[in-house]
Amino acid sequence: MLDVETALSRALARAGLASAKAADAVAVAARTARFDVADIGAKAALTGNPIPRLVELLAAAAPEGAEALHVGATSQDIIDTAMMLLAKRAAPVLLADLAKAADAAASLAERHRASLMAGRTLLQQALPITFGLKAATWLVALDEARARLSEVARTRLCVQLGGAAGTLASLGDRGAEVAFLLAEELGLVVPVLPWHTMRLPIVELSAALAGAASVLGKIARDITLLAQSEIAEVREATSPGRGGSSTLPHKRNPVAAVAILGCTRRVPGLLSTLVSASEQEHERAAGAWHAEWETFADLLRLVGSAAALCQDLLGGLEVDVARLRANLDASGELPLSEHLTTLLSPALGRLAAHALVEEAAQRASYSGRPLLEALLSEPKAAAAVSGAGVAPEKLRAALDPASYLGSTATFIDRALTAHRQREVPS
Amino acid sequence: MLDVETALSRALARAGLASAKAADAVAVAARTARFDVADIGAKAALTGNPIPRLVELLAAAAPEGAEALHVGATSQDIIDTAMMLLAKRAAPVLLADLAKAADAAASLAERHRASLMAGRTLLQQALPITFGLKAATWLVALDEARARLSEVARTRLCVQLGGAAGTLASLGDRGAEVAFLLAEELGLVVPVLPWHTMRLPIVELSAALAGAASVLGKIARDITLLAQSEIAEVREATSPGRGGSSTLPHKRNPVAAVAILGCTRRVPGLLSTLVSASEQEHERAAGAWHAEWETFADLLRLVGSAAALCQDLLGGLEVDVARLRANLDASGELPLSEHLTTLLSPALGRLAAHALVEEAAQRASYSGRPLLEALLSEPKAAAAVSGAGVAPEKLRAALDPASYLGSTATFIDRALTAHRQREVPS
Amino acid sequence: MLDVETALSRALARAGLASAKAADAVAVAARTARFDVADIGAKAALTGNPIPRLVELLAAAAPEGAEALHVGATSQDIIDTAMMLLAKRAAPVLLADLAKAADAAASLAERHRASLMAGRTLLQQALPITFGLKAATWLVALDEARARLSEVARTRLCVQLGGAAGTLASLGDRGAEVAFLLAEELGLVVPVLPWHTMRLPIVELSAALAGAASVLGKIARDITLLAQSEIAEVREATSPGRGGSSTLPHKRNPVAAVAILGCTRRVPGLLSTLVSASEQEHERAAGAWHAEWETFADLLRLVGSAAALCQDLLGGLEVDVARLRANLDASGELPLSEHLTTLLSPALGRLAAHALVEEAAQRASYSGRPLLEALLSEPKAAAAVSGAGVAPEKLRAALDPASYLGSTATFIDRALTAHRQREVPS
Amino acid sequence: MLDVETALSRALARAGLASAKAADAVAVAARTARFDVADIGAKAALTGNPIPRLVELLAAAAPEGAEALHVGATSQDIIDTAMMLLAKRAAPVLLADLAKAADAAASLAERHRASLMAGRTLLQQALPITFGLKAATWLVALDEARARLSEVARTRLCVQLGGAAGTLASLGDRGAEVAFLLAEELGLVVPVLPWHTMRLPIVELSAALAGAASVLGKIARDITLLAQSEIAEVREATSPGRGGSSTLPHKRNPVAAVAILGCTRRVPGLLSTLVSASEQEHERAAGAWHAEWETFADLLRLVGSAAALCQDLLGGLEVDVARLRANLDASGELPLSEHLTTLLSPALGRLAAHALVEEAAQRASYSGRPLLEALLSEPKAAAAVSGAGVAPEKLRAALDPASYLGSTATFIDRALTAHRQREVPS
Repeated sequence: MLDVETALSRALARAGLASAKAADAVAVAARTARFDVADIGAKAALTGNPIPRLVELLAAAAPEGAEALHVGATSQDIIDTAMMLLAKRAAPVLLADLAKAADAAASLAERHRASLMAGRTLLQQALPITFGLKAATWLVALDEARARLSEVARTRLCVQLGGAAGTLASLGDRGAEVAFLLAEELGLVVPVLPWHTMRLPIVELSAALAGAASVLGKIARDITLLAQSEIAEVREATSPGRGGSSTLPHKRNPVAAVAILGCTRRVPGLLSTLVSASEQEHERAAGAWHAEWETFADLLRLVGSAAALCQDLLGGLEVDVARLRANLDASGELPLSEHLTTLLSPALGRLAAHALVEEAAQRASYSGRPLLEALLSEPKAAAAVSGAGVAPEKLRAALDPASYLGSTATFIDRALTAHRQREVPS
Repeated sequence: MLDVETALSRALARAGLASAKAADAVAVAARTARFDVADIGAKAALTGNPIPRLVELLAAAAPEGAEALHVGATSQDIIDTAMMLLAKRAAPVLLADLAKAADAAASLAERHRASLMAGRTLLQQALPITFGLKAATWLVALDEARARLSEVARTRLCVQLGGAAGTLASLGDRGAEVAFLLAEELGLVVPVLPWHTMRLPIVELSAALAGAASVLGKIARDITLLAQSEIAEVREATSPGRGGSSTLPHKRNPVAAVAILGCTRRVPGLLSTLVSASEQEHERAAGAWHAEWETFADLLRLVGSAAALCQDLLGGLEVDVARLRANLDASGELPLSEHLTTLLSPALGRLAAHALVEEAAQRASYSGRPLLEALLSEPKAAAAVSGAGVAPEKLRAALDPASYLGSTATFIDRALTAHRQREVPS
Repeated sequence: MLDVETALSRALARAGLASAKAADAVAVAARTARFDVADIGAKAALTGNPIPRLVELLAAAAPEGAEALHVGATSQDIIDTAMMLLAKRAAPVLLADLAKAADAAASLAERHRASLMAGRTLLQQALPITFGLKAATWLVALDEARARLSEVARTRLCVQLGGAAGTLASLGDRGAEVAFLLAEELGLVVPVLPWHTMRLPIVELSAALAGAASVLGKIARDITLLAQSEIAEVREATSPGRGGSSTLPHKRNPVAAVAILGCTRRVPGLLSTLVSASEQEHERAAGAWHAEWETFADLLRLVGSAAALCQDLLGGLEVDVARLRANLDASGELPLSEHLTTLLSPALGRLAAHALVEEAAQRASYSGRPLLEALLSEPKAAAAVSGAGVAPEKLRAALDPASYLGSTATFIDRALTAHRQREVPS
Repeated sequence: MLDVETALSRALARAGLASAKAADAVAVAARTARFDVADIGAKAALTGNPIPRLVELLAAAAPEGAEALHVGATSQDIIDTAMMLLAKRAAPVLLADLAKAADAAASLAERHRASLMAGRTLLQQALPITFGLKAATWLVALDEARARLSEVARTRLCVQLGGAAGTLASLGDRGAEVAFLLAEELGLVVPVLPWHTMRLPIVELSAALAGAASVLGKIARDITLLAQSEIAEVREATSPGRGGSSTLPHKRNPVAAVAILGCTRRVPGLLSTLVSASEQEHERAAGAWHAEWETFADLLRLVGSAAALCQDLLGGLEVDVARLRANLDASGELPLSEHLTTLLSPALGRLAAHALVEEAAQRASYSGRPLLEALLSEPKAAAAVSGAGVAPEKLRAALDPASYLGSTATFIDRALTAHRQREVPS
C-alpha cells in the first residue's frame, strides 16, 4: 500500500499536479517511517479499512508531501492496486516454479518413455501404460496452466484508480492521465474503466491460480498413490530429517505431495468466496469487497507454495522402474485382456469377444491362473478361439505389455514438442 | 499445542506412567522456554507438521521431562486437540457476544413493537410490518444459532488421542485411561473413539459457526439496506472517527454492518473446504487434514469478529421512527392493497378482487394518486366495489397500516417469551 | 406444493375460515386435476415462481374451493413448506439406510475384531490395527451422523406460513392458529416465528445432510483404496453385470464406492450455496431464496443416494482376511518399529531410541532385511540395545502385530456398546 | 452421447477401420432407435455410467454396425466428448445473449451519458455520476466476459478419445488419427493429449462461465437496488402478467433481475465442485469424474439462463431520469462535499479542508440545511473559507453536480469505443 501511495505521488508529480519535492517527501516517508500496525488495525475497525489511518500517518511523517499524497484516490484505489501489485510480484516466482516443474515432468517423460507400468482406472489396474506417458500428461497440464496464468498476469493485472465513485472527479479532467502514469510507475495494465465493482480481473486471476492448483493437486494425488507402501513405484527424494514421523521410526512420508494437497484442497473454497464476492453493489460493495482481501492473499500464497513444492518434488522424484513392471506383472496378464478382445473381435464380434474374455478373466481372478491359460482351458472358450482363427502364438504375443501401448509414443512426443515450442513469458 | 503437551504430561503422571516431577518439568518448559517460530516452521516443511520440532525443542528445554513428554501421542493428537482447545476458548466469548446481540434485538423488538414500517419483499414495499417484528425475527434466529453453537460446544469439543494409528498401542492397555485424563485436564469431551479421520466434530462445529454467521450476515444485510441514504431508517451509533471516508467528508458509513458482511461472506467457502476435507484416507489423511488447520482458525476468528461487531451494532442502533413511517406513507396506500383485496374477496372471489385491486394499483402508480381514489374513480371498479357491499368507510379504515398487522403482536410476544425462557449456557 | 395447498385448505376449514366443502374441493382438484408443467414453468418466468399459475389452475379446477384456496398464504409459504415436506418424506428413508449401514459396520467390527491389517497414515503403512477397528470407526461416525440428522428432522422441519410479509395480515388475528393447524396437517414443527428470510432451518438441515455425506464419503474413500488391485483387501459383493467395464473384460470396479463419492463430492459446493443464500434481504430475498430450490432438492437426492449405496456396499462387503495379513507382513516388521522404540525408551530415552530404530528401519528398507536383524547386525546399535538390558526374546516377541494393538479391543467394544444403546428414531 | 458414438463410427470409417455401411448403420440406429432411459439408468447403477448399456442397445439396434461401434473408445471418452458437445452447442446461444446484453448496455451508456445520478459506495450516496457511466461499467465487463468465454469456446472445447487408459491401445497405431477425425466430425479441438484425468478444459470453461455469471449477477444486483420502491430509478419493462405477486396486487417485482440472481448465486458452489473434482486419480477418477456430470450441465444451464434474462432485462430497462436527479438532489449538496474539499485544499491543506467540510456535512445532516449554508454559517469555518481566498460564487458553482464529473465522459467514450472495436466471434 505504501508503494502504491508512493507511485501515485510520482504520477501526480509527472502530471504536473504536485511538485517533485512533495512526491519525494511521500516516497521517503513511505520508505523510512515506522508504522504501528496495531494502531492502523484498530483505526481500520472504525473506518472500515486501513487506508485513512495510513494516510494520516504518512501525512504526519511527510508534511511537505501533502499536495502529492493520496490526491485523487479513494481507499479502495490503494487497496485494489496493492492487491494487483502483490500478484505482480508473486507471478514471476510462481511461473518460474511451474516452469521448473514442467521441465522436470518433461525429463521424466523422456527418461521413462518406455518404463512399463499399470494404467489404473477407478484405482484398478486397467491397461499397460508407461511412466513417461503419465509424466507427459502432467507436463501438458502444467504447460497449459502456466500459459493461462502467464497470459492473465500479462493482461489482467490492472491498476485501479477511480476516486470515490469511479469518476476521478477530484482530478478534474486529468484523471485518466494520472491513472495511466500510475500504471506505468507500477508496471500494471491500464484498464478500459476503473473496475472497483466489476471484479473480472480478480475472478480471472483467481481462476487461473485455481487452474494451476488443480494441476498441482492432480500430480500430488498421483504421487501419494504411487508412493503407497504396497505400490512403492515412486519415492520423494530424501534429505536428512525429511518425511520422518514423530512416532514411527520407519516412515518415509511423501511430505511434499501431502503439503501440496494441503494447499490445493483449500483453493476451491477460496475461489468460490472470490466469485461470490464479485457481485458488488453500485460503486463500492458493502462487505463483498472486504471479503476479498485475505482470501486473495491466501490464494496467492497457497498456490505459490504448492508450485514451489511441486518443482522440488518432481525434480527429485525417484521412480522404481523394476517395481512399476513388477506391479503390472502381478496382475497376471489381466491388463492385457482388452488386447485379446481386440484380436478376437473381428471374427467373433466385439460384444461376444468381450463376454468370452470377461468370463476367462473372472476364472483367472478366482483361480490365480494366468489369463490366457484360463481362457484356453475352458473347452467352449477354446473352441470359440480356435474357430476365430487367431493363432495361439499371436494371442501369446499379445500378452506382452509392450505390444499394447497404442499411441503412447506419439503422445509423449507430442507433449515434449509442445513443451519445447511453448515460450511462456515468466 | 504447548498446553496440550503439558496436559498430556500431567495425564501420564496421574496415570502413574510418568513421575510428577517429569510432568512438572514439561509444564515449566512449555510455559517458560522461548521457541523460535521460524525455525519450527522451516522444520515443519520437512516433516509435514510442526510437532516433531516442537517436541524436540521441549525435550531439550526439559531434559528431566522425557518420560512425560509426548508419550503415547502422535503429531495429529496434539494438533487436533489444540484445535479443539482453540474452539473451547473462543466459544464462551462468541456465545456471550451472541447473547448480547440477542438481548439488544429483544430490546429493539420490545421498544419498536408498534413502530410501523414497510415490509419489503424482493426489495419492494409489500405490506406494513413493525420494526419490532423485524427485530424479533433477528432475535429468534440469534437465539437458535447460539443454542446450537452452545450445544455443539458442550458435546463436540472432543479430545483426540489415538497414537500413530488410533490404537494407542504405545500405551499398552492404559491408552483409554490416559485419553480420559487428558480430556479432564483440558475440559474437553471424551469421544467414543479417536476421530483422527472421522471429522464429524469439526464438521458439526463448523456448521454451527456457519449457522451463526448466516444469522449475523442477514442482520447486517438488513441494516446496510435500511441505512441507505434514500431510506435512512436506521443509523449505526456514531463515535469519533467512526464510519468516515478518506475522501468524502459527508459520509457516515455503516461500518460495523459492512465489516460483519466482510466476515460472513467468507464463511461458506471455508465451510465447504472443511466439509470437503472431511473425506480423509485410512488412519491419517494425506493433505485433507492439513487443509483444516488455518481454515478452521479463520472460521473461528471471522465468526467471532462478526458476533462482536453485531452486539455492538445492535446495542447502539439508532432507529428513526418517523422515517420508518414516512417511507411507508410515501407509497400512497399501495402496501395496503392486499387489505382491500381481503375485504372485497368474500363478495367478489379472491382472484377477481385481486385483479380489480391490481388494476387500481397500476393506475395509482402511474398517476401518483392514492390507491383508494384510483380504485373508486374508475366506474367499472367502483360499481364492482359497490356491488360487493363493503362500505367506503370500511375501505378507508383499511388503509390505516396499524389496522393490517395480523399476528405481528403475537409473534413479537412469542419471540420475547422464547428469549426469556431460553437459558443458553455460555 | 399441491399437498401444501390441500393441507392449508383443511387448516382453514378447521379454523372455521372456510367450509369443509371448499377444502374438499381443493383437495380433490389437487389430487385429480392434470397440470401442464411446461405451462406452469413458462408462467413462472413471468412471476418469479410457479405458485401464482398453480393457484390459478387450481382455482379453475375447483371453483367451489375459492374460499379455502391459498387464503393467507404467499408463494413462498407454499414453496418453503413444500421443501420441508420433501425433507420430511426423504428423512425416514435416509435414516433407515444409515441405520442399515451402521448395522453392517457393527457386524464387520464384530466379525473382524481381531483381523490384523496395516493401519495407514499418509497412505503409508504405520502400525498394525484390525479391520474391526476400522469398521468401528465407520460405525461411530455413522451413528453420530444419523443421530444429528434424526434430531434435525425431529425439531427443524418447520412449517412456513407468514403471508406476504410475515405478519399473516390477511388472516386477521387467526394467523397463528392457522399456521398451527397447517403444521399439524403436515406433521411439521411450528416455528417460533415465520422463517421466510431467517434460513437456519435450511442451513441446519443441510449441514446435517453434509455431515452424513462426509461420513459416507470417508467410508467410500477407504473402500476404493482397500480395493486397489495391488492391495485387494476388500471387494464389493458381485452380482451379474455389476462393476464391469465397457472395454476391459477383467475389471471388477468398486462401483458402489465410486458412486457414493460421485454423490458426496458434490455436497460441499451445494452446502456452500445454501449457506451463502441464507443472507436474505428484508422480508423476501431477491434471488438468494430462488437459489435454494434446486440446490436443496439436489442435496437431499445425493445424500439419500449415497446412503442407499452405502448400506448395500457395507452389507455385502467381502473382506479378504488373509490378504489383510499378507500386506501387513510384506512390510517386514517395519510397522512394529514403534513397538521396539517403546521397549528401548525407558533405558535409552525416547528420542535416542527413536533415532536408533529409525536408522535400523532405513537400513531394513534399503537392504530388504527384516527390521530386527537390521537393528542387531549394526554393531553400535547392537551394543546400545544390549546396554538397554532388553532381552532379544522380548524384542522378537514385540514383532508380533497382535502384541501391539493397544486399546483396539476396548475401542471396538465401546463402539458396539454405543451402537446398541443408541436408539435413533427413524 | 449418441451423436458422439455416431461421429466415432464415421471417424473409424474415414480412417478405413470400419466400412461406411457399418458407420451408416450406427448413425441410423442412433437417430431412430427408441431408448428406454429408465432402463439405461438402472443399468448405469451397476456399471457406474450409462455407456455400457447404451452401447449394448445400439449394438442390438444396429447389428451390421458392430465393427464401427464404440471401437477404440471407453465410456469416459463418450461422456467427456458429449459434455464438450453440450458446451459447444450452448456457447453460441450464450455468446449471442451476452452480445445483445452488451449492445443494450452500450445503448444505455450512450443515451444516459449525461443523466446525473448519485454514485453510491457502501450503499450511501457518495458523488455524482451519470447513469451512462454505470451502464458503461456494465458494458466493459460484459465485453470482457464474453471475450474470455469466446476464446475458451474456440480453444478449449476438446475432443476426448483415449481408450481405457489414455493410450488408445485398441486402435494400434491409428489412435491419434481417429481422434483427429472424431474432432473434425464434431467441430471440436484436438488436445495435445487425452485429458481424461487432467481436467483443465473443464476448469477453464467453468471459470469462464463463472466470469460471465459474476458480471450478470453484478448487473442484476444493481438493478434490484435501483428498482427499490424508495429509489425507483429503474424499472423492468412491463408485459402482461410479468412481475405480479400472488398476494399483493400493487407489486411490480424486478423478476428478471431476481431470476438472474437466482441463477448466478448457485455458480460459485458449482464452480468449487468442479475445481475440487479436478484432482483426479491416475487414469480415471473414482468419483470425482462422476461429480462433474450434472454439475457442469447445471452450470451451462444457469449461466445460459442468466444471460438470456439479462439481455431481455437490459434491452427493456426503463430509466427514470427525473428520479435519478431527484434522489441526488435530495441529499442536499452532500455528494458535492468532496468538491468543496478539493477547492479548499490548495490553500488549507487536504486534511484540514477535509475536516472542515466533514464537520459542516455533519451539521447539514443533523439540521437538514444545505451543505454550503451549514459551512458558511459557522463563524470559524466561514473565517477559514474566507482566509482560503476561494470566492463564494466558485463554491456555489461547485455544488452543481454536472461540474464535478471528472473523467466520466472520457470513460464512457472509452467503453463505447472498445465495444465497437471488439469483434467477438460468437
